[in-house]
Amino acid sequence: MRNLLLTLAYNGSRYHGFQVQENALSVCQVFQDGLEKVFGSRLNIKGCSRTDAGVHANAYCLSMRAPGRIPCDRLVEALNANLPKDIAVTGCREVPADFHARYSCRGKEYIYKLHNSRIRNPFWEGLVYQYPTPVDAKLLHEQAGDFVGNYDFTSFSSIKGKEGDKSRTITSFEVRREGDLVLFTVSGDGFLYNMVRIMVGTLLFIGAEKLEKGSIHRILAAKDRRLAGKTVPSSGLYLNRVFYDESDLMMV
Amino acid sequence: MRNLLLTLAYNGSRYHGFQVQENALSVCQVFQDGLEKVFGSRLNIKGCSRTDAGVHANAYCLSMRAPGRIPCDRLVEALNANLPKDIAVTGCREVPADFHARYSCRGKEYIYKLHNSRIRNPFWEGLVYQYPTPVDAKLLHEQAGDFVGNYDFTSFSSIKGKEGDKSRTITSFEVRREGDLVLFTVSGDGFLYNMVRIMVGTLLFIGAEKLEKGSIHRILAAKDRRLAGKTVPSSGLYLNRVFYDESDLMMV
Repeated sequence: MRNLLLTLAYNGSRYHGFQVQENALSVCQVFQDGLEKVFGSRLNIKGCSRTDAGVHANAYCLSMRAPGRIPCDRLVEALNANLPKDIAVTGCREVPADFHARYSCRGKEYIYKLHNSRIRNPFWEGLVYQYPTPVDAKLLHEQAGDFVGNYDFTSFSSIKGKEGDKSRTITSFEVRREGDLVLFTVSGDGFLYNMVRIMVGTLLFIGAEKLEKGSIHRILAAKDRRLAGKTVPSSGLYLNRVFYDESDLMMV
Repeated sequence: MRNLLLTLAYNGSRYHGFQVQENALSVCQVFQDGLEKVFGSRLNIKGCSRTDAGVHANAYCLSMRAPGRIPCDRLVEALNANLPKDIAVTGCREVPADFHARYSCRGKEYIYKLHNSRIRNPFWEGLVYQYPTPVDAKLLHEQAGDFVGNYDFTSFSSIKGKEGDKSRTITSFEVRREGDLVLFTVSGDGFLYNMVRIMVGTLLFIGAEKLEKGSIHRILAAKDRRLAGKTVPSSGLYLNRVFYDESDLMMV
Protein backbone atom coordinates (compact mmCIF):
# COMPACT_ATOMS: atom_id res chain seq x y z
CA MET A 1 0.00 0.00 0.00
CA ARG A 2 1.33 3.42 -0.93
CA ASN A 3 0.92 6.37 1.41
CA LEU A 4 -0.53 9.34 -0.50
CA LEU A 5 -0.80 13.03 0.34
CA LEU A 6 -3.78 14.68 -1.34
CA THR A 7 -4.71 18.36 -1.43
CA LEU A 8 -8.34 19.47 -1.69
CA ALA A 9 -10.06 22.76 -2.31
CA TYR A 10 -13.63 22.96 -1.11
CA ASN A 11 -16.48 25.36 -0.73
CA GLY A 12 -17.59 24.54 2.80
CA SER A 13 -20.98 26.30 2.57
CA ARG A 14 -23.12 23.19 2.68
CA TYR A 15 -20.88 21.09 4.94
CA HIS A 16 -20.65 20.82 8.70
CA GLY A 17 -16.87 20.93 8.59
CA PHE A 18 -14.36 18.36 7.46
CA GLN A 19 -14.72 15.82 10.25
CA VAL A 20 -17.41 13.11 10.01
CA GLN A 21 -20.50 14.09 12.04
CA GLU A 22 -23.31 11.92 13.31
CA ASN A 23 -26.27 13.71 11.74
CA ALA A 24 -24.77 16.23 9.35
CA LEU A 25 -22.99 16.21 6.01
CA SER A 26 -19.19 16.47 6.23
CA VAL A 27 -16.52 16.95 3.58
CA CYS A 28 -14.79 13.81 4.87
CA GLN A 29 -17.83 11.61 4.36
CA VAL A 30 -18.51 12.92 0.87
CA PHE A 31 -14.82 12.54 0.00
CA GLN A 32 -14.80 8.94 1.26
CA ASP A 33 -17.91 8.24 -0.84
CA GLY A 34 -15.95 9.43 -3.90
CA LEU A 35 -12.91 7.36 -2.91
CA GLU A 36 -15.13 4.29 -2.57
CA LYS A 37 -16.40 4.74 -6.12
CA VAL A 38 -12.82 4.87 -7.41
CA PHE A 39 -11.25 2.12 -5.26
CA GLY A 40 -14.27 -0.13 -4.76
CA SER A 41 -13.85 -0.13 -0.98
CA ARG A 42 -14.08 2.33 1.92
CA LEU A 43 -10.63 3.75 2.80
CA ASN A 44 -9.47 5.49 5.95
CA ILE A 45 -8.14 9.01 5.59
CA LYS A 46 -6.19 11.26 7.94
CA GLY A 47 -7.16 14.92 7.64
CA CYS A 48 -4.79 17.72 8.65
CA SER A 49 -7.43 19.28 10.90
CA ARG A 50 -11.08 19.61 11.71
CA THR A 51 -12.65 22.68 10.16
CA ASP A 52 -15.82 24.33 11.45
CA ALA A 53 -19.17 24.20 9.65
CA GLY A 54 -19.16 26.58 6.68
CA VAL A 55 -15.37 27.03 6.63
CA HIS A 56 -13.66 26.71 3.22
CA ALA A 57 -10.31 25.34 2.11
CA ASN A 58 -7.97 26.42 -0.65
CA ALA A 59 -5.54 23.62 0.20
CA TYR A 60 -6.71 21.07 2.73
CA CYS A 61 -4.25 18.18 3.18
CA LEU A 62 -5.02 14.57 3.93
CA SER A 63 -3.04 11.35 3.84
CA MET A 64 -4.25 7.84 3.12
CA ARG A 65 -3.01 4.34 2.36
CA ALA A 66 -4.13 3.44 -1.12
CA PRO A 67 -4.21 -0.05 -2.66
CA GLY A 68 -3.17 -0.62 -6.27
CA ARG A 69 -0.81 1.38 -8.45
CA ILE A 70 -3.06 3.97 -10.09
CA PRO A 71 -0.81 6.94 -11.10
CA CYS A 72 -1.36 10.14 -9.11
CA ASP A 73 -2.60 12.26 -12.04
CA ARG A 74 -5.15 9.61 -13.02
CA LEU A 75 -6.32 9.31 -9.41
CA VAL A 76 -6.88 13.10 -9.27
CA GLU A 77 -8.93 12.91 -12.45
CA ALA A 78 -10.97 9.89 -11.29
CA LEU A 79 -11.71 11.45 -7.90
CA ASN A 80 -12.78 14.77 -9.40
CA ALA A 81 -15.16 12.90 -11.68
CA ASN A 82 -16.69 11.24 -8.59
CA LEU A 83 -16.93 14.22 -6.25
CA PRO A 84 -19.52 17.00 -6.11
CA LYS A 85 -18.62 20.32 -7.78
CA ASP A 86 -17.94 22.06 -4.46
CA ILE A 87 -14.98 19.78 -3.71
CA ALA A 88 -11.92 19.47 -5.97
CA VAL A 89 -8.79 17.37 -5.60
CA THR A 90 -5.98 19.70 -6.63
CA GLY A 91 -2.92 17.49 -6.08
CA CYS A 92 -1.59 14.07 -5.13
CA ARG A 93 1.88 12.74 -4.34
CA GLU A 94 3.32 9.61 -2.81
CA VAL A 95 4.90 10.21 0.61
CA PRO A 96 6.88 8.04 3.06
CA ALA A 97 4.97 5.42 5.04
CA ASP A 98 5.34 7.33 8.33
CA PHE A 99 3.91 10.60 6.98
CA HIS A 100 0.62 11.63 8.61
CA ALA A 101 -1.32 14.71 7.41
CA ARG A 102 -2.05 15.78 10.98
CA TYR A 103 0.90 14.62 13.08
CA SER A 104 3.50 15.68 10.49
CA CYS A 105 1.95 19.14 10.16
CA ARG A 106 4.29 22.02 11.18
CA GLY A 107 1.82 24.86 10.82
CA LYS A 108 -1.11 26.32 8.92
CA GLU A 109 -2.14 29.52 7.27
CA TYR A 110 -5.71 30.82 7.30
CA ILE A 111 -7.19 33.68 5.32
CA TYR A 112 -10.29 35.52 6.49
CA LYS A 113 -12.16 37.44 3.76
CA LEU A 114 -14.20 40.43 4.84
CA HIS A 115 -16.29 42.16 2.17
CA ASN A 116 -16.27 45.74 3.36
CA SER A 117 -19.32 47.09 1.58
CA ARG A 118 -22.83 48.21 2.33
CA ILE A 119 -24.03 46.27 -0.70
CA ARG A 120 -23.60 42.51 -0.93
CA ASN A 121 -21.88 40.83 -3.87
CA PRO A 122 -24.38 38.25 -5.22
CA PHE A 123 -21.51 36.03 -6.41
CA TRP A 124 -19.99 35.73 -2.93
CA GLU A 125 -22.85 34.33 -0.89
CA GLY A 126 -21.38 32.13 1.84
CA LEU A 127 -17.83 32.99 0.69
CA VAL A 128 -17.14 36.21 2.62
CA TYR A 129 -18.30 38.08 5.70
CA GLN A 130 -20.15 41.17 4.54
CA TYR A 131 -19.31 44.04 6.86
CA PRO A 132 -20.79 47.46 6.00
CA THR A 133 -18.83 49.76 8.35
CA PRO A 134 -15.62 51.12 6.73
CA VAL A 135 -12.55 49.27 8.00
CA ASP A 136 -9.09 50.85 8.41
CA ALA A 137 -6.96 47.92 7.22
CA LYS A 138 -3.72 49.71 8.13
CA LEU A 139 -4.77 50.15 11.76
CA LEU A 140 -5.93 46.53 11.99
CA HIS A 141 -2.64 45.39 10.45
CA GLU A 142 -0.68 47.25 13.16
CA GLN A 143 -2.85 45.83 15.94
CA ALA A 144 -2.65 42.29 14.51
CA GLY A 145 1.10 42.31 15.17
CA ASP A 146 0.31 41.94 18.89
CA PHE A 147 -0.87 38.36 18.25
CA VAL A 148 2.54 37.31 16.91
CA GLY A 149 4.47 35.22 19.42
CA ASN A 150 3.88 32.31 21.77
CA TYR A 151 0.91 32.89 24.07
CA ASP A 152 -1.85 31.14 25.93
CA PHE A 153 -4.83 31.83 23.64
CA THR A 154 -7.59 30.95 26.14
CA SER A 155 -9.16 34.39 25.62
CA PHE A 156 -9.26 33.74 21.90
CA SER A 157 -10.83 30.29 21.88
CA SER A 158 -14.35 29.02 22.26
CA ILE A 159 -15.21 27.88 25.76
CA LYS A 160 -16.53 24.76 23.96
CA GLY A 161 -12.99 23.90 22.83
CA LYS A 162 -11.62 20.71 24.37
CA GLU A 163 -7.90 21.39 23.85
CA GLY A 164 -5.85 20.93 27.03
CA ASP A 165 -2.85 23.13 26.38
CA LYS A 166 -4.05 26.48 25.01
CA SER A 167 -0.55 27.67 24.17
CA ARG A 168 0.05 28.38 20.46
CA THR A 169 2.61 30.29 18.41
CA ILE A 170 1.44 32.80 15.83
CA THR A 171 4.24 33.40 13.33
CA SER A 172 2.62 36.13 11.24
CA PHE A 173 -0.63 38.06 11.04
CA GLU A 174 -1.19 40.51 8.19
CA VAL A 175 -4.22 42.60 7.25
CA ARG A 176 -4.46 44.22 3.85
CA ARG A 177 -7.11 45.78 1.63
CA GLU A 178 -7.77 44.58 -1.94
CA GLY A 179 -10.53 46.78 -3.35
CA ASP A 180 -13.53 46.26 -1.10
CA LEU A 181 -12.11 43.07 0.37
CA VAL A 182 -10.12 43.18 3.60
CA LEU A 183 -7.92 40.08 3.88
CA PHE A 184 -6.64 38.78 7.23
CA THR A 185 -3.80 36.28 6.73
CA VAL A 186 -2.58 34.45 9.82
CA SER A 187 -0.01 31.67 10.21
CA GLY A 188 0.84 29.63 13.24
CA ASP A 189 1.84 26.23 14.57
CA GLY A 190 -1.76 25.44 15.44
CA PHE A 191 -5.11 27.03 16.16
CA LEU A 192 -7.67 26.49 18.90
CA TYR A 193 -11.39 26.06 18.30
CA ASN A 194 -12.75 29.34 16.73
CA MET A 195 -9.38 31.04 17.37
CA VAL A 196 -8.98 32.76 13.98
CA ARG A 197 -12.59 33.94 14.02
CA ILE A 198 -12.23 35.42 17.52
CA MET A 199 -8.91 37.12 16.65
CA VAL A 200 -10.50 38.72 13.58
CA GLY A 201 -13.58 39.71 15.61
CA THR A 202 -11.34 41.32 18.22
CA LEU A 203 -9.47 43.33 15.57
CA LEU A 204 -12.84 44.53 14.25
CA PHE A 205 -13.83 45.56 17.79
CA ILE A 206 -10.64 47.62 18.03
CA GLY A 207 -11.40 49.17 14.63
CA ALA A 208 -14.93 50.03 15.80
CA GLU A 209 -13.55 51.44 19.10
CA LYS A 210 -15.42 48.86 21.15
CA LEU A 211 -11.99 47.88 22.45
CA GLU A 212 -9.06 50.23 22.85
CA LYS A 213 -5.96 50.09 20.65
CA GLY A 214 -3.17 48.00 22.11
CA SER A 215 -5.54 45.89 24.22
CA ILE A 216 -4.62 42.51 22.73
CA HIS A 217 -1.75 41.83 25.17
CA ARG A 218 -4.03 42.60 28.11
CA ILE A 219 -6.75 40.29 26.78
CA LEU A 220 -4.22 37.50 26.19
CA ALA A 221 -2.91 37.83 29.74
CA ALA A 222 -6.40 37.69 31.28
CA LYS A 223 -7.20 34.24 29.78
CA ASP A 224 -10.88 35.17 29.66
CA ARG A 225 -12.92 34.65 26.49
CA ARG A 226 -15.40 37.35 27.56
CA LEU A 227 -12.81 40.11 27.11
CA ALA A 228 -12.19 39.44 23.39
CA GLY A 229 -14.37 40.46 20.44
CA LYS A 230 -17.16 38.40 18.97
CA THR A 231 -16.65 35.34 16.80
CA VAL A 232 -17.03 36.40 13.15
CA PRO A 233 -19.01 34.11 10.81
CA SER A 234 -17.40 30.97 9.36
CA SER A 235 -18.32 32.05 5.79
CA GLY A 236 -15.19 34.25 5.50
CA LEU A 237 -12.67 31.65 6.69
CA TYR A 238 -10.34 29.70 4.40
CA LEU A 239 -7.69 27.17 5.34
CA ASN A 240 -5.15 28.47 2.86
CA ARG A 241 -1.94 26.47 3.37
CA VAL A 242 -0.65 23.59 5.45
CA PHE A 243 3.07 23.46 6.17
CA TYR A 244 5.19 20.29 6.23
CA ASP A 245 8.91 19.68 6.39
CA GLU A 246 9.93 18.82 2.87
CA SER A 247 12.18 16.12 4.39
CA ASP A 248 9.06 14.39 5.77
CA LEU A 249 7.55 14.35 2.28
CA MET A 250 10.53 13.14 0.25
CA MET A 251 10.56 9.54 -0.91
CA VAL A 252 14.09 8.21 -0.42
CA MET B 1 -44.49 59.48 -10.16
CA ARG B 2 -40.70 59.64 -10.49
CA ASN B 3 -38.92 57.67 -13.18
CA LEU B 4 -36.03 55.71 -11.62
CA LEU B 5 -33.04 53.93 -13.16
CA LEU B 6 -31.84 51.01 -11.02
CA THR B 7 -28.76 48.87 -11.48
CA LEU B 8 -28.68 45.25 -10.31
CA ALA B 9 -26.00 42.63 -9.95
CA TYR B 10 -27.21 39.06 -9.93
CA ASN B 11 -25.96 35.52 -9.92
CA GLY B 12 -28.17 34.00 -12.62
CA SER B 13 -27.46 30.36 -11.71
CA ARG B 14 -30.91 29.52 -10.41
CA TYR B 15 -32.90 31.81 -12.73
CA HIS B 16 -34.31 31.26 -16.20
CA GLY B 17 -33.09 34.65 -17.34
CA PHE B 18 -34.34 38.12 -16.53
CA GLN B 19 -37.64 38.10 -18.39
CA VAL B 20 -40.76 36.71 -16.69
CA GLN B 21 -41.40 33.10 -17.78
CA GLU B 22 -44.60 31.07 -17.56
CA ASN B 23 -43.29 28.11 -15.59
CA ALA B 24 -39.83 29.07 -14.44
CA LEU B 25 -38.25 31.44 -11.94
CA SER B 26 -37.02 34.72 -13.42
CA VAL B 27 -34.97 37.57 -11.95
CA CYS B 28 -37.74 39.99 -12.98
CA GLN B 29 -40.42 38.14 -11.04
CA VAL B 30 -38.29 37.86 -7.90
CA PHE B 31 -37.32 41.52 -8.20
CA GLN B 32 -40.96 42.56 -8.55
CA ASP B 33 -41.79 40.49 -5.46
CA GLY B 34 -39.18 42.52 -3.57
CA LEU B 35 -40.54 45.79 -4.98
CA GLU B 36 -44.03 44.82 -3.89
CA LYS B 37 -42.84 44.33 -0.31
CA VAL B 38 -41.30 47.80 -0.31
CA PHE B 39 -44.04 49.74 -2.16
CA GLY B 40 -47.08 47.70 -1.14
CA SER B 41 -48.19 47.23 -4.75
CA ARG B 42 -46.95 45.47 -7.89
CA LEU B 43 -44.98 47.87 -10.13
CA ASN B 44 -44.09 47.56 -13.78
CA ILE B 45 -40.44 47.59 -14.69
CA LYS B 46 -38.62 47.98 -18.00
CA GLY B 47 -35.49 45.85 -18.24
CA CYS B 48 -32.59 46.73 -20.56
CA SER B 49 -32.67 43.27 -22.14
CA ARG B 50 -33.66 39.68 -21.76
CA THR B 51 -30.83 37.48 -20.54
CA ASP B 52 -30.65 33.72 -21.09
CA ALA B 53 -31.12 31.16 -18.33
CA GLY B 54 -28.02 30.97 -16.15
CA VAL B 55 -26.53 34.25 -17.41
CA HIS B 56 -25.23 36.68 -14.77
CA ALA B 57 -25.16 40.45 -14.52
CA ASN B 58 -22.64 42.81 -12.98
CA ALA B 59 -24.75 45.84 -13.90
CA TYR B 60 -28.22 45.13 -15.26
CA CYS B 61 -30.27 48.29 -15.81
CA LEU B 62 -33.99 48.74 -15.44
CA SER B 63 -36.30 51.72 -15.26
CA MET B 64 -39.59 52.07 -13.42
CA ARG B 65 -42.15 54.63 -12.32
CA ALA B 66 -42.18 54.75 -8.55
CA PRO B 67 -44.85 56.29 -6.35
CA GLY B 68 -43.91 58.27 -3.24
CA ARG B 69 -40.70 60.15 -2.42
CA ILE B 70 -38.49 57.54 -0.77
CA PRO B 71 -34.86 58.72 -1.25
CA CYS B 72 -32.76 56.62 -3.62
CA ASP B 73 -30.25 55.41 -1.02
CA ARG B 74 -33.03 54.27 1.30
CA LEU B 75 -34.80 52.50 -1.58
CA VAL B 76 -31.58 50.60 -2.37
CA GLU B 77 -31.31 49.53 1.25
CA ALA B 78 -34.98 48.54 1.53
CA LEU B 79 -34.88 46.53 -1.70
CA ASN B 80 -31.69 44.70 -0.72
CA ALA B 81 -33.32 43.74 2.56
CA ASN B 82 -36.24 42.26 0.59
CA LEU B 83 -34.37 40.43 -2.18
CA PRO B 84 -32.65 37.04 -2.09
CA LYS B 85 -28.86 37.02 -1.60
CA ASP B 86 -28.16 36.25 -5.26
CA ILE B 87 -29.63 39.58 -6.39
CA ALA B 88 -28.31 42.98 -5.23
CA VAL B 89 -29.46 46.48 -6.10
CA THR B 90 -26.21 48.42 -6.60
CA GLY B 91 -27.53 51.85 -7.59
CA CYS B 92 -30.54 54.09 -8.09
CA ARG B 93 -31.03 57.54 -9.64
CA GLU B 94 -33.94 59.61 -10.82
CA VAL B 95 -34.06 60.05 -14.60
CA PRO B 96 -36.26 62.08 -17.00
CA ALA B 97 -39.79 60.84 -17.62
CA ASP B 98 -39.01 59.74 -21.19
CA PHE B 99 -36.03 57.57 -20.22
CA HIS B 100 -36.56 53.84 -20.91
CA ALA B 101 -33.94 51.26 -19.86
CA ARG B 102 -34.32 49.37 -23.16
CA TYR B 103 -35.22 51.99 -25.77
CA SER B 104 -32.70 54.55 -24.46
CA CYS B 105 -29.90 51.96 -24.45
CA ARG B 106 -26.96 52.79 -26.78
CA GLY B 107 -25.00 49.61 -26.32
CA LYS B 108 -23.88 46.86 -23.98
CA GLU B 109 -20.75 45.14 -22.85
CA TYR B 110 -20.59 41.45 -22.02
CA ILE B 111 -17.78 39.51 -20.37
CA TYR B 112 -17.38 35.78 -20.86
CA LYS B 113 -15.29 34.01 -18.19
CA LEU B 114 -13.51 30.84 -19.19
CA HIS B 115 -11.67 28.93 -16.47
CA ASN B 116 -8.82 27.37 -18.38
CA SER B 117 -7.88 24.53 -16.07
CA ARG B 118 -8.09 20.79 -15.88
CA ILE B 119 -9.20 21.11 -12.27
CA ARG B 120 -12.40 22.91 -11.34
CA ASN B 121 -12.50 25.73 -8.83
CA PRO B 122 -15.08 24.72 -6.19
CA PHE B 123 -15.91 28.39 -5.51
CA TRP B 124 -16.88 29.10 -9.13
CA GLU B 125 -19.60 26.55 -9.75
CA GLY B 126 -22.06 28.04 -12.25
CA LEU B 127 -19.92 31.20 -12.52
CA VAL B 128 -17.44 30.21 -15.26
CA TYR B 129 -17.06 27.79 -18.13
CA GLN B 130 -14.42 25.26 -17.16
CA TYR B 131 -12.34 24.44 -20.23
CA PRO B 132 -9.41 22.07 -19.72
CA THR B 133 -7.53 22.45 -23.06
CA PRO B 134 -4.87 25.22 -22.92
CA VAL B 135 -6.09 28.38 -24.66
CA ASP B 136 -3.82 30.84 -26.51
CA ALA B 137 -5.49 34.10 -25.45
CA LYS B 138 -3.24 36.16 -27.73
CA LEU B 139 -4.31 34.22 -30.83
CA LEU B 140 -7.98 34.45 -29.84
CA HIS B 141 -7.59 38.18 -29.24
CA GLU B 142 -6.23 38.66 -32.77
CA GLN B 143 -9.03 36.59 -34.29
CA ALA B 144 -11.71 38.38 -32.26
CA GLY B 145 -10.85 41.63 -34.07
CA ASP B 146 -12.61 40.18 -37.13
CA PHE B 147 -15.96 40.57 -35.35
CA VAL B 148 -15.53 44.33 -34.98
CA GLY B 149 -17.68 46.28 -37.44
CA ASN B 150 -21.23 46.27 -38.75
CA TYR B 151 -22.28 42.85 -40.02
CA ASP B 152 -25.24 40.56 -40.45
CA PHE B 153 -24.71 38.15 -37.54
CA THR B 154 -27.11 35.41 -38.73
CA SER B 155 -24.27 32.86 -38.54
CA PHE B 156 -23.68 33.86 -34.93
CA SER B 157 -27.22 33.69 -33.64
CA SER B 158 -29.49 30.88 -32.54
CA ILE B 159 -31.93 29.72 -35.23
CA LYS B 160 -34.50 30.07 -32.44
CA GLY B 161 -33.91 33.84 -32.36
CA LYS B 162 -36.91 35.89 -33.47
CA GLU B 163 -35.08 39.12 -34.36
CA GLY B 164 -35.95 40.42 -37.84
CA ASP B 165 -32.89 42.48 -38.72
CA LYS B 166 -29.76 40.50 -37.83
CA SER B 167 -27.43 43.41 -38.45
CA ARG B 168 -25.42 44.54 -35.42
CA THR B 169 -22.33 46.63 -34.77
CA ILE B 170 -19.55 45.24 -32.59
CA THR B 171 -17.40 48.11 -31.35
CA SER B 172 -14.71 46.13 -29.53
CA PHE B 173 -13.82 42.54 -28.74
CA GLU B 174 -10.85 41.79 -26.51
CA VAL B 175 -9.52 38.51 -25.14
CA ARG B 176 -7.01 38.46 -22.31
CA ARG B 177 -5.64 36.03 -19.77
CA GLU B 178 -5.75 36.68 -16.01
CA GLY B 179 -4.10 33.70 -14.33
CA ASP B 180 -6.12 30.66 -15.31
CA LEU B 181 -9.09 32.79 -16.37
CA VAL B 182 -9.48 33.79 -20.01
CA LEU B 183 -11.75 36.84 -20.28
CA PHE B 184 -13.64 37.71 -23.46
CA THR B 185 -14.93 41.31 -23.37
CA VAL B 186 -17.24 42.37 -26.19
CA SER B 187 -19.17 45.62 -26.73
CA GLY B 188 -21.75 46.44 -29.33
CA ASP B 189 -24.96 48.28 -30.09
CA GLY B 190 -26.98 45.12 -29.56
CA PHE B 191 -26.71 41.36 -29.48
CA LEU B 192 -28.81 38.60 -31.05
CA TYR B 193 -30.04 35.54 -29.18
CA ASN B 194 -26.97 33.47 -28.08
CA MET B 195 -24.69 35.75 -30.11
CA VAL B 196 -21.92 36.26 -27.52
CA ARG B 197 -21.88 32.56 -26.67
CA ILE B 198 -21.58 31.55 -30.33
CA MET B 199 -18.84 34.12 -31.00
CA VAL B 200 -16.84 32.79 -28.03
CA GLY B 201 -17.49 29.20 -29.13
CA THR B 202 -16.23 30.04 -32.62
CA LEU B 203 -13.03 31.59 -31.25
CA LEU B 204 -12.46 28.42 -29.21
CA PHE B 205 -12.98 26.32 -32.38
CA ILE B 206 -10.29 28.42 -34.10
CA GLY B 207 -8.00 27.93 -31.09
CA ALA B 208 -8.59 24.18 -31.22
CA GLU B 209 -8.00 24.15 -35.01
CA LYS B 210 -11.53 22.92 -35.69
CA LEU B 211 -11.87 26.10 -37.79
CA GLU B 212 -9.03 27.79 -39.65
CA LYS B 213 -7.57 31.14 -38.59
CA GLY B 214 -9.15 34.10 -40.36
CA SER B 215 -12.40 32.24 -41.05
CA ILE B 216 -14.72 34.65 -39.21
CA HIS B 217 -15.32 36.92 -42.22
CA ARG B 218 -16.20 33.92 -44.39
CA ILE B 219 -18.64 32.61 -41.73
CA LEU B 220 -20.26 36.06 -41.35
CA ALA B 221 -20.74 36.30 -45.14
CA ALA B 222 -22.34 32.84 -45.38
CA LYS B 223 -25.20 33.72 -42.96
CA ASP B 224 -25.37 30.09 -41.88
CA ARG B 225 -25.36 29.15 -38.17
CA ARG B 226 -23.99 25.69 -38.97
CA LEU B 227 -20.62 27.12 -40.02
CA ALA B 228 -19.85 28.78 -36.67
CA GLY B 229 -18.58 27.10 -33.49
CA LYS B 230 -20.74 25.68 -30.76
CA THR B 231 -22.67 27.75 -28.23
CA VAL B 232 -20.64 27.83 -25.01
CA PRO B 233 -22.51 27.43 -21.68
CA SER B 234 -24.41 30.36 -20.17
CA SER B 235 -22.55 29.93 -16.84
CA GLY B 236 -19.59 32.02 -18.09
CA LEU B 237 -21.61 34.97 -19.40
CA TYR B 238 -21.98 38.33 -17.60
CA LEU B 239 -23.82 41.43 -18.75
CA ASN B 240 -21.12 43.82 -17.59
CA ARG B 241 -22.18 47.34 -18.63
CA VAL B 242 -25.10 49.06 -20.30
CA PHE B 243 -24.40 52.31 -22.14
CA TYR B 244 -26.68 55.36 -22.15
CA ASP B 245 -26.21 58.91 -23.36
CA GLU B 246 -25.58 60.96 -20.26
CA SER B 247 -27.89 63.61 -21.76
CA ASP B 248 -30.77 61.11 -21.64
CA LEU B 249 -30.10 60.56 -17.94
CA MET B 250 -29.70 64.16 -16.75
CA MET B 251 -32.56 65.76 -14.88
CA VAL B 252 -32.92 69.30 -16.16
